[in-house]
Amino acid sequence: MAAQDYLAPDFTAPQLAHAPDARFEAVPADGVLPEGFFSTSNLPTYVRLNGRWLLPARPRMDCAIVRRGDALEVIEPRRLPKGEAVAMGLAEDGTEGIYVHTAGFLGGAHSPNEFRFMATEVSRERPVNYEELAVRLIEERTLGGYLIWVAGPALVHSRARGDFEWFVRQGFVHAVLAGNAVAVHDIEAAIFGTTLGMSSTGRPTDAGHGLHMRAINHVRAAGSIEAAVRSGLIRDGIMHALVTHGVPFVLAGSIRDDGPLPGVIPSSVEAQDGMREHTVKATGAILVASALHAIAVGNMLPAYHTHYGGVPTPLMTICVDQTEFVVNKLRDRGTHQAYGVVTNAQDFMHVLRFYIERGSQS
Amino acid sequence: MAAQDYLAPDFTAPQLAHAPDARFEAVPADGVLPEGFFSTSNLPTYVRLNGRWLLPARPRMDCAIVRRGDALEVIEPRRLPKGEAVAMGLAEDGTEGIYVHTAGFLGGAHSPNEFRFMATEVSRERPVNYEELAVRLIEERTLGGYLIWVAGPALVHSRARGDFEWFVRQGFVHAVLAGNAVAVHDIEAAIFGTTLGMSSTGRPTDAGHGLHMRAINHVRAAGSIEAAVRSGLIRDGIMHALVTHGVPFVLAGSIRDDGPLPGVIPSSVEAQDGMREHTVKATGAILVASALHAIAVGNMLPAYHTHYGGVPTPLMTICVDQTEFVVNKLRDRGTHQAYGVVTNAQDFMHVLRFYIERGSQS
Amino acid sequence: MAAQDYLAPDFTAPQLAHAPDARFEAVPADGVLPEGFFSTSNLPTYVRLNGRWLLPARPRMDCAIVRRGDALEVIEPRRLPKGEAVAMGLAEDGTEGIYVHTAGFLGGAHSPNEFRFMATEVSRERPVNYEELAVRLIEERTLGGYLIWVAGPALVHSRARGDFEWFVRQGFVHAVLAGNAVAVHDIEAAIFGTTLGMSSTGRPTDAGHGLHMRAINHVRAAGSIEAAVRSGLIRDGIMHALVTHGVPFVLAGSIRDDGPLPGVIPSSVEAQDGMREHTVKATGAILVASALHAIAVGNMLPAYHTHYGGVPTPLMTICVDQTEFVVNKLRDRGTHQAYGVVTNAQDFMHVLRFYIERGSQS
Amino acid sequence: MAAQDYLAPDFTAPQLAHAPDARFEAVPADGVLPEGFFSTSNLPTYVRLNGRWLLPARPRMDCAIVRRGDALEVIEPRRLPKGEAVAMGLAEDGTEGIYVHTAGFLGGAHSPNEFRFMATEVSRERPVNYEELAVRLIEERTLGGYLIWVAGPALVHSRARGDFEWFVRQGFVHAVLAGNAVAVHDIEAAIFGTTLGMSSTGRPTDAGHGLHMRAINHVRAAGSIEAAVRSGLIRDGIMHALVTHGVPFVLAGSIRDDGPLPGVIPSSVEAQDGMREHTVKATGAILVASALHAIAVGNMLPAYHTHYGGVPTPLMTICVDQTEFVVNKLRDRGTHQAYGVVTNAQDFMHVLRFYIERGSQS
Repeated sequence: MAAQDYLAPDFTAPQLAHAPDARFEAVPADGVLPEGFFSTSNLPTYVRLNGRWLLPARPRMDCAIVRRGDALEVIEPRRLPKGEAVAMGLAEDGTEGIYVHTAGFLGGAHSPNEFRFMATEVSRERPVNYEELAVRLIEERTLGGYLIWVAGPALVHSRARGDFEWFVRQGFVHAVLAGNAVAVHDIEAAIFGTTLGMSSTGRPTDAGHGLHMRAINHVRAAGSIEAAVRSGLIRDGIMHALVTHGVPFVLAGSIRDDGPLPGVIPSSVEAQDGMREHTVKATGAILVASALHAIAVGNMLPAYHTHYGGVPTPLMTICVDQTEFVVNKLRDRGTHQAYGVVTNAQDFMHVLRFYIERGSQS
Repeated sequence: MAAQDYLAPDFTAPQLAHAPDARFEAVPADGVLPEGFFSTSNLPTYVRLNGRWLLPARPRMDCAIVRRGDALEVIEPRRLPKGEAVAMGLAEDGTEGIYVHTAGFLGGAHSPNEFRFMATEVSRERPVNYEELAVRLIEERTLGGYLIWVAGPALVHSRARGDFEWFVRQGFVHAVLAGNAVAVHDIEAAIFGTTLGMSSTGRPTDAGHGLHMRAINHVRAAGSIEAAVRSGLIRDGIMHALVTHGVPFVLAGSIRDDGPLPGVIPSSVEAQDGMREHTVKATGAILVASALHAIAVGNMLPAYHTHYGGVPTPLMTICVDQTEFVVNKLRDRGTHQAYGVVTNAQDFMHVLRFYIERGSQS
Repeated sequence: MAAQDYLAPDFTAPQLAHAPDARFEAVPADGVLPEGFFSTSNLPTYVRLNGRWLLPARPRMDCAIVRRGDALEVIEPRRLPKGEAVAMGLAEDGTEGIYVHTAGFLGGAHSPNEFRFMATEVSRERPVNYEELAVRLIEERTLGGYLIWVAGPALVHSRARGDFEWFVRQGFVHAVLAGNAVAVHDIEAAIFGTTLGMSSTGRPTDAGHGLHMRAINHVRAAGSIEAAVRSGLIRDGIMHALVTHGVPFVLAGSIRDDGPLPGVIPSSVEAQDGMREHTVKATGAILVASALHAIAVGNMLPAYHTHYGGVPTPLMTICVDQTEFVVNKLRDRGTHQAYGVVTNAQDFMHVLRFYIERGSQS
Repeated sequence: MAAQDYLAPDFTAPQLAHAPDARFEAVPADGVLPEGFFSTSNLPTYVRLNGRWLLPARPRMDCAIVRRGDALEVIEPRRLPKGEAVAMGLAEDGTEGIYVHTAGFLGGAHSPNEFRFMATEVSRERPVNYEELAVRLIEERTLGGYLIWVAGPALVHSRARGDFEWFVRQGFVHAVLAGNAVAVHDIEAAIFGTTLGMSSTGRPTDAGHGLHMRAINHVRAAGSIEAAVRSGLIRDGIMHALVTHGVPFVLAGSIRDDGPLPGVIPSSVEAQDGMREHTVKATGAILVASALHAIAVGNMLPAYHTHYGGVPTPLMTICVDQTEFVVNKLRDRGTHQAYGVVTNAQDFMHVLRFYIERGSQS
């Protein structure tokens, strides 16, 4: 995971040494790109500007590369006003001044970096290397990394709440990106001890079907999740831990929401913008039990980051789901670096915590 | 499916005959319900008002029952301003003036209505009764019913576009509730012949990863999906069929969207409100290959409708997915009436069309 | 789980008190039953003989009830020679002298026994009650119960070997019923440190595809698994633990086998007979990651046993699989008592061990 | 699919031209191979004998290559008596006289052969190319190919019986390899109109749980499946079609079998030997809805055949299952050539038949 892992392109190779500068054209109307714009991927992408190869800031896929003076930035098309200068071209081999460096992290067959090998296949039949996962999380914490967690409601359903609280308290969680449902289930559990009316041992309760609506109503009455924590209405759980430890969270609204809770961002584009401010800081991402949010955040995540000394470093991306499908879908949508863990969310949290506790002692 | 299927409650039974009127309390603050409010389900629910049992209008689950003069309506809590009168109580047996009629459609073991029996179990090992499905769709069309379709992007990925167009042209589609991705994939297919850069035979294409972004950009330049159809940019596919046949659609924004396309509603609550206007008209719903939207719409759908002469009639709800999980999740979230079809979306559309074509001829 | 849990039938009720003796007919040819034979289920089934209601010995589903003098036994049809007397009739309500007691363990809505409630639904979204599972396993060990384990090869693939060894050493495993593949993978791991040529961290190895064939060849050269353990060829793992602790195992041959290993029983009917000798002793069964063997053994298992004082007691049946499908299929095939755990086999073993270790200390 | 597709190795290349003859050693004991034996894969494998490169007969994976005079044959280790001469070595690059030709069918990026491209990924989100499948099946029938079908019981459960009969009648089925359950369900349907007691529309029937046992008993009384067809006991369905059209079938016993039916082969090794006689003739294989049998037959199938003029030709292998898991597992077990179709077995049969009917007319 160290900086030397990255094999920078050989800019002295004829193809790159003699490449032209990238071409830029003006945005013809607000949120509309010029025909023939360059569409980004999540890989290290060098743009030639005044004879120099530059990595644009804030990389992600499915965006445009914008020039502002000598600076380059990757920006969502919908955010670009008329007149901005965006990079043009389809070629990714440098011939039009843009070079996508696919081989930066491959490292050959003798690489000691197991993550990349294991990433090539996702199956319930593969062993999960919890030791390595634990080592990596501890390492990120030690280096001062920024770990974002994406969580689906199964994490709360399945009694992993306590383990998630533990990860927050131990300093492994630097931002949580999720939806309304995670917070609703967590707060229903905090107030009533149930999730969707089911007790923590899986038993249905009387009149349980309305409890999540009552939980939402309590928080709406309190004014905000933070206020409900401060007032003592919410005394434990994930949201309690995030609020009391000052960990930021972004809750995106969705068409499926009950409520929603105060603080949930109803606008999908505003929620994307809110999450993007965390993905650009990320050195690692753990995506657990959410197809929607895993793919949403996967789309925003570059395959690498430059937060450790400016050198491209693989962005650790762990995707946990009950079936191979979600992990493969994430990878089919371009997040090829995802390391898949095919298991139950509750058990994942429990076993990973166990290995971290053991790893921290040694 | 005829009206006589419904067994109305016996209001002369002592428990109901002597029940009190329902109690109402004022909403204490905008979007905040009084403690102890009645939380609705999707079943026929009678409210006693001035000694008479009434069915509130616009039923759905997870809402409040609001009295406005002599009228009762089911409304989302977030839409209620301070001062509105909402029904109170936890009891569903009439003792507090509210009676949830769970047995209205059960009909006993000798019921000829196969749908309800089959609805009790969902498995890939059960035969799919396409004949019955075809008969039901033809019957709904004949009766002037209102069929809403919920679709996920797999419907477009998997070449069911042509079959969906056929259903639109034949008058089986009265509203489509979906997300940005369905329209994006469909329009990418219309313009470039690919979905996510994959050809219709499953082959990747050169520079394919940017094609969906280019398709979105074209529509943004055109100003709207409708304009892009009128201009000839979009010449076939689902969106083309909807626009040219005047079938309404609601596209809800989500955190995962690229673009989004013009016309997609970014606000999750506004999108819910837009979809609700269709679910209250629905006499049937077909939910294909979308966990997010199936559950979202399932939450809005009552288990019955009163559009055929005012008598409660089961609301035909068909949920198609590749695995049992989505169907079971939909049912776990309260949409117990869903009839599950565990198959590939493409094949479902193809075989159902085949049976309808055959059934229409006979 | 105590004996009083069982509600015996009320044999004084008129329907049972006045029931006739069961009728028996002779088997007309070896392995061919008389038309109209009684086909067993896995529920407590009482047969009236000389005016008394008796529970036949060795209960299981899909068999005949045979009378030999005053004794009754449940036997597979293929094992019955011409002339044996088998019980006749279709009725299960006592009117033909046979009474299937479906309500013996239901116990009503206020039962403190959570297992039965949880057993009614299987979902990855339900919490797994590991505390209760741990308590039950410890209890069975304390009571001198007989726990049979059914295992699929994913248990070995996924590094749960060490945990399974631990369960053997701690006295929680009294018989293992499995196939050739479990033993092959386990022995490949013991000899070469790989499973199907994949290292324990999931990496492929050079020439790995032949290693399982070489492992089999070594054992064939040694003559038997037991000999390979004694000779030091096999120094760790599941088979080593079973042999050194004297725990019996039955390995059934299948059409898919490589080898097979010596000791694997090629005949499916002989292997069934071998497994049956363990299922009739079982007080509990844990079925992990094998559809084929879980359903095979599920078919042999009664829903109850009488090993604790002769009174019918529910036979604890835990089915662990990555998806709901296998558990539901097991239940669809009649093993309704199965408690489903939807998770990865490796994580299940690890977490269950953790809870047992913690539970044993307290 | 034509012969020219195969790129034979360049035997004039120095590595191959100067390779030594392969080395052979005697089998030391019945069914035990000499240490260091060559373990086969399913790819074209050339063995140098007297300075010439030969393809052994009857290729399959996980076997030994046996020399008998100038002939070479691939044989299961368990079938080899002491003294047979087997090829030795681990190297697959010719340096020890054995060359595994991995590139014979790859054909480069411009290959018109879509099947191989599509085979590289399996997903419910990929379109199924039914036109191409239909063309291929018609082509195989025209060429006089040998198509083996592997079927699981879901094919019968889900009312695809009629379609399977159609494929038999139309000459697309040359052998069926399956287990007891397929035949039991099919015959229960023929005699009672149910499968596992469930009607063809998915409804449970009274006393249905014993019907499969009664069906088995009837056939046992008749003496054989063939006799039961001749006597009129079995009047329709898959087994009826196979018997009346003289299509051979091999039914392998398994640990999970009820009965078994007469004709089922209880011995797993005898059943393997029986199936192998069909896989060596196969020019194509269609594996539907059976994990156990798909992988078993996949292990026996070479990736190519030489039945069209002696030149290696890819062996068309289609694997149909409800989830990606079985197809991926098949490929993980070495059957890399499998083309995956992720759908419901019933719908697959129906749609494929529809396309063949349409394709045959044009």
